[in-house]
Amino acid sequence: MTTFDDPPALPRGFACASRNVGLKPEARDLTLIASEVDCAAAAVFTRNQFPGAPIVLGREVIRSGVLRAIVVNSKVSNVATGDEGLARARRMAAAAARELGTEPDRVLVSSTGVIGVPLPIEKIEAGIAGMAVEMQADPLVAALGIMTTDTHPKAFSTRVGAATITWIGKGAGMIEPNMATMLVYILTDARLAASSLDAMLRRAVDVSLNMLSVDTDTSTSDTCAILASGRAGDVDEAAFEQALVAGSIRMAETIARDGEGATHLIRVRVRGAKNRAEARTVAKSIVNSPLVKTMVAGADPNVGRLLMAIGKCFDAAIVPARTDAWINGHQVVRGGARASFEDSTVRAALGEEVVQVDVALGVGEADATAFGCDLTQGYVEENAAYYSS
Amino acid sequence: MTTFDDPPALPRGFACASRNVGLKPEARDLTLIASEVDCAAAAVFTRNQFPGAPIVLGREVIRSGVLRAIVVNSKVSNVATGDEGLARARRMAAAAARELGTEPDRVLVSSTGVIGVPLPIEKIEAGIAGMAVEMQADPLVAALGIMTTDTHPKAFSTRVGAATITWIGKGAGMIEPNMATMLVYILTDARLAASSLDAMLRRAVDVSLNMLSVDTDTSTSDTCAILASGRAGDVDEAAFEQALVAGSIRMAETIARDGEGATHLIRVRVRGAKNRAEARTVAKSIVNSPLVKTMVAGADPNVGRLLMAIGKCFDAAIVPARTDAWINGHQVVRGGARASFEDSTVRAALGEEVVQVDVALGVGEADATAFGCDLTQGYVEENAAYYSS
Repeated sequence: MTTFDDPPALPRGFACASRNVGLKPEARDLTLIASEVDCAAAAVFTRNQFPGAPIVLGREVIRSGVLRAIVVNSKVSNVATGDEGLARARRMAAAAARELGTEPDRVLVSSTGVIGVPLPIEKIEAGIAGMAVEMQADPLVAALGIMTTDTHPKAFSTRVGAATITWIGKGAGMIEPNMATMLVYILTDARLAASSLDAMLRRAVDVSLNMLSVDTDTSTSDTCAILASGRAGDVDEAAFEQALVAGSIRMAETIARDGEGATHLIRVRVRGAKNRAEARTVAKSIVNSPLVKTMVAGADPNVGRLLMAIGKCFDAAIVPARTDAWINGHQVVRGGARASFEDSTVRAALGEEVVQVDVALGVGEADATAFGCDLTQGYVEENAAYYSS
Repeated sequence: MTTFDDPPALPRGFACASRNVGLKPEARDLTLIASEVDCAAAAVFTRNQFPGAPIVLGREVIRSGVLRAIVVNSKVSNVATGDEGLARARRMAAAAARELGTEPDRVLVSSTGVIGVPLPIEKIEAGIAGMAVEMQADPLVAALGIMTTDTHPKAFSTRVGAATITWIGKGAGMIEPNMATMLVYILTDARLAASSLDAMLRRAVDVSLNMLSVDTDTSTSDTCAILASGRAGDVDEAAFEQALVAGSIRMAETIARDGEGATHLIRVRVRGAKNRAEARTVAKSIVNSPLVKTMVAGADPNVGRLLMAIGKCFDAAIVPARTDAWINGHQVVRGGARASFEDSTVRAALGEEVVQVDVALGVGEADATAFGCDLTQGYVEENAAYYSS
């Protein structure tokens, strides 16, 4: 069982600063995260075929397996901005490198916000000056700086031996992962090789951020990076990976719970599937079904919708007579039919903040868990007027 | 150019009746559609792996290629009801056959409504008695009887030579076709073999109802059937198929426009795709994207969302620099970047009742068109409280 620090800590040698540089009217819109020394690093990026300029640059930069700093702006995503967008992403890396006394190819750039609008690079270059002296050993400073439609900053930390691991993330909308679909930065002072970090990060993301979906839409900007400074020395790699997975699942759940307009975290565990791919497909189908999501929002036990969402996985091995399902431990489907249950009991279960759906398919040994949220009026409200606001 | 009759007509020898038999408080909940003679017939059904009892029975009945009548109830879908559900579907067919003076295996049964609740078969058996004398030559009587959350009855007709073709349908929610995902009945007095009907129906559904999506959810009950009485004699098959396709697209658009809470029809045409499957995938991705759907609901030209929705088709051939897009004829994406356009012009275009998105991928010759609707507060409202209402 991994436990997390409250308030969260940063690993030794890391610091953060965030500011308003004029991209948003008042809120912080520029963030620096930096290490005193070069770090072994790995990253995964969105699979969207219109990646933002920062993603194109990030893929280039991460090849070395070394990072010193991360610079992030919100409000404008620098996506669909062509060669000029890529040039501005490079200028943003250079500006952060100058301010922090490192090289541009040691800086990971992220931008999040509206697609297709030129990045106001002059404001960023001017605004970044002087941030180095504001760097603090507080991850919430960075978590606050990278927020868009998030309702609260997302950062937490844990310990593995002498090392600390800290997660800093943002989410909210346009979130259906396929190689990390949000901004999540993981910092540690453990000493690990870039190749180990890369392998562990991919395994951790696979069962956490890649199983998260707010709305099935996949952002063009999303990034999950891990930086290991080595300042705390060697760690037990198995223990480190276990903590990495636990924290990444926690971040996935934190982001899902704070999905745009969301009032519930929905966790769907599918077991007894023919294979892992099918378990993931069924779990995602349930967590993404608008009729399941509105059922949770309305706390109305219209549980046939679970069968509908399972059954629309046309290519998965499904045997109706072997299919069972539970909502927060109350059996609602037995042998492919609605189980007999007290309406009021299941209604109360659907009203809990975390709604866990368990599905047993009874056709194999594979399992998977997906993370999502309910669909409310708030989602429509935020997204029908996102651009002009 | 196919033109449609207003008011709609029924082909010779067909008649309809609908009634309230006590499944709903007051609205009509039981519908009969019948021909005076046996008809050549074909049907396609939902691919959902939890098909309702009427689907199981329908697949059995349609094998003969002969139908005389259709009986439909709303409010309860008879899905996830096990062997008893199938027995009740058979009793429903038998009741309709008795009333109409035909055999149960000439009757197609459909049920639509809540999943997992026993079908009140006694109410249906009692309520159907006496309906034969109420049969009228008006398709709106049937269209009205099969409505659930539809806001208006859906029926129209056209002529091919001496023959009439009439479409009667319902839609509203849980609509992402994969072999017709709603109830649509097509009646004609043309003389056509069941095998021809079957081939033509599958081709017509493939470019119409199967390209329709309200919310990505696939119902467990959906059915599209065609009945040809032959009373008007032979027709030009090519002209018949052309009209069949045109009318089926019109029905798809009518259902999309009346999607739960919808205020706009969204029509997405993708051309220049590598192959037809990829054209369909990209068109569906756009029409299903919650961020595109809310953009239309809010009439806010956040057009980068189109690129996001195209780009999340990870396996399709996409070349950003060759990608263009238009909204109601106004170019909004040029070479993979936001085109320069007047914000107010595109805002006005998004405010029109029909919003057509054209996408040119520039990588091949294939095209496809998908039909959907915007995502509004109304959708969430209807579905968060559907069961208890």
